[in-house]
Parts: sequence; C-alpha cells; structure tokens
Amino acid sequence: MSRVVVDVMLKPEILDPQGDAVHAALGRLGFDGIASVRQGKRFELALTGEATPERIEEVERAAGTLLANPVIEDFTVRVEDPVRPDGRPSER
Amino acid sequence: MSRVVVDVMLKPEILDPQGDAVHAALGRLGFDGIASVRQGKRFELALTGEATPERIEEVERAAGTLLANPVIEDFTVRVEDPVRPDGRPSER
Repeated sequence: MSRVVVDVMLKPEILDPQGDAVHAALGRLGFDGIASVRQGKRFELALTGEATPERIEEVERAAGTLLANPVIEDFTVRVEDPVRPDGRPSER
Repeated sequence: MSRVVVDVMLKPEILDPQGDAVHAALGRLGFDGIASVRQGKRFELALTGEATPERIEEVERAAGTLLANPVIEDFTVRVEDPVRPDGRPSER
C-alpha cells in the first residue's frame, strides 16, 4: 500500500474569496503579520501496491480529470510515506 | 516574505463521505487500484518577514483556532519555499 498526495490550489491569477475571508478572520482574531491566505484542497489516495511511475502518471491523469479543474486550478502529485496497516501514515 | 502551509485532514477515525464520493467517481472513470481517498484542506499563508519559530507557533495557534476543528481534524504546519515578489512560489 502506498500513499499519494494530490494538492489542488487555485492558480495565482484567480481570485480566492475563501482565502481572503480566512485572512480577514485571522486579522480579527489578532493574528497579524500575514500578507495573504490561499485555500485549496488536499487529497490523500491510498494505492493498492507500489506507487510505480505508471501508476503516478495515472493519478496525474485522474487529478487533471476529476480532482482539479485545470482551467482555474494547479495541482501537484507526490508520493508520501507508506501507509501502515492501521491506515495512519508511518512515523517520520 | 515566507510561505507556510497548513494541511488539515479529518482524523483517521472520522468518516469522510466526500472522499468516498471521489473514490467512487474515480472507479466509474476507470481509475482502479485505489484503496481509499481522504479529502482535506490546504492553506498557504504568506507571512511578512521571516518564519521564525515564534511565528510558526502563532500559525499553529491560528490553525487550531480557526483553520481546523481539533475535535475531528488533524493539522500540520510547515514552512515551504520562500515567496517570490510576484507572489508565486520560487522555483524548486
């Protein structure tokens, strides 16, 4: 079992009202010194078996098809720590 | 300017119907070999100035207060690449 993480963020040129709302709320709570906040999505996929280059390529296709909207979003795919039998990530 | 990433995921013992829906949709699209999908949130915070340990600690407080619900969610805070003047992350 291997774990692949897909991070999906709005492209830098796309406005992010959700991130702006979080930024404003942080300011109201007294958290200063934050110039901007962008909010995106994170997917953790547990693959059966090894994360071979072919399977990573398939995950990249899946990300561009379903997980992200490539018109307005960028995504990155990376292999993370192996998944332990209890489903939690292994210790680092 | 420094960039801090906060990843927020549901705790492993909390059901994730959104992740399950993505998992089912991937299967219908022909992407097999995926054992499970969990969906969470990713926040990118651009801090003014350096990401000192004190400021990271403040971001951790902010994450536990506003970005995540610690009752049902885990979060991690980490410093990423410095932010370039145009707001994009620097090349890796």
